[in-house]
Amino acid sequence: MTLYTFELSTPKENFYNITAQVREAAADSGVRDGAALVFCPHTTAGITINENADPDVVRDLLLGLDKAFPDRTEFRHAEGNSAAHLKASAIGSSQMIIIENGKLVLGTWQMIIIENGKLVLGTWQGIYFCEFDPPRKRKFHVKIIGGGNDNDAR
Amino acid sequence: MTLYTFELSTPKENFYNITAQVREAAADSGVRDGAALVFCPHTTAGITINENADPDVVRDLLLGLDKAFPDRTEFRHAEGNSAAHLKASAIGSSQMIIIENGKLVLGTWQMIIIENGKLVLGTWQGIYFCEFDPPRKRKFHVKIIGGGNDNDAR
Amino acid sequence: MTLYTFELSTPKENFYNITAQVREAAADSGVRDGAALVFCPHTTAGITINENADPDVVRDLLLGLDKAFPDRTEFRHAEGNSAAHLKASAIGSSQMIIIENGKLVLGTWQMIIIENGKLVLGTWQGIYFCEFDPPRKRKFHVKIIGGGNDNDAR
Repeated sequence: MTLYTFELSTPKENFYNITAQVREAAADSGVRDGAALVFCPHTTAGITINENADPDVVRDLLLGLDKAFPDRTEFRHAEGNSAAHLKASAIGSSQMIIIENGKLVLGTWQMIIIENGKLVLGTWQGIYFCEFDPPRKRKFHVKIIGGGNDNDAR
Repeated sequence: MTLYTFELSTPKENFYNITAQVREAAADSGVRDGAALVFCPHTTAGITINENADPDVVRDLLLGLDKAFPDRTEFRHAEGNSAAHLKASAIGSSQMIIIENGKLVLGTWQMIIIENGKLVLGTWQGIYFCEFDPPRKRKFHVKIIGGGNDNDAR
Repeated sequence: MTLYTFELSTPKENFYNITAQVREAAADSGVRDGAALVFCPHTTAGITINENADPDVVRDLLLGLDKAFPDRTEFRHAEGNSAAHLKASAIGSSQMIIIENGKLVLGTWQMIIIENGKLVLGTWQGIYFCEFDPPRKRKFHVKIIGGGNDNDAR
């Protein structure tokens, strides 16, 4: 069970799509059957799963989180990033994704969207690193839990 | 480690109790010792664990989520369901439940409630599929992770 | 895969640091490589991971949660603790923490803070039991999932 660690730069408050890296870790592990645990080792960032088709979804998520958890004059934490800590706990530090037959089990979005004259078919649920306190150099861990490892004799 | 997939219809925004299905998957797997990962493959729905004794709890949860994450005129996502995406990320896409001696470890609620003259004893924590964008045909996955499988020679 | 159960008293609404107990369970299990699942069997409390350096962070988190999920006259749940149920579902019932080489993988906080003339170095992410409906006698479970067990021949 290898631990995979990835680095990313987060220039602004945003949701950064890390699905490809998690998929890569799952593939590299050789695990056929188990789960991927994606973990954020920071306290003003989190991990979530949401739509990766329309970029306006992430924009609206950021806006809605800002409205629910605004900066407040009553906050006392000297760093001034209490709202980011709050969003991190609301979003959560980790996500678990099922691995079946060596592949992440993420939802396909059945709707067909016509955007700029293009059909978008079978778009995937995306796994996001959520930056609430930019700019930062960040990392996240992926741990593959399970059996049926191709490299494993049993 | 079988993957269990269940389907459900969600006529209205609500929390649908799926504890029985998760229990069924855990029992069917034969796993004595591990955890059940309940995963929602949709981006406007989620999975949570909360009280299943008084139906007013779910009613109040829905109301409180609506107040914290209302629909907003500033939202741009064309489908018009950004509030549902937001609730999904706040509630989360999955839950993990411990399996011990082949049974889900969920809390019993020790308080005795007298409601309409009836005693309610030892009510369980419930696992809920949370629909925020109805009506839909939905599904959720249950993956049992662990060992001590009754059907497993090792 | 032993199940560890810890008890705690929660005199007031607060985040109680349980990192030491989770670390203790991980060490006792002998698991070198896997994950710790920390589970809260209550419906008006939750588990989160956030900063454990400046106590004002927890104070601000409690304040921000109160503002986002206040008590409301429209709530009907007879116990009068619907806001606590709401916070519990927003924060979540469990957290997973990676175990690598027998140790919890939690983030160190690289910044150096000078507070009251003292340097604070390499502070850890903390795991918190979040009490939203005090005072209570509570418990939480820790389940260690994984292999490489020191006591395990395979």
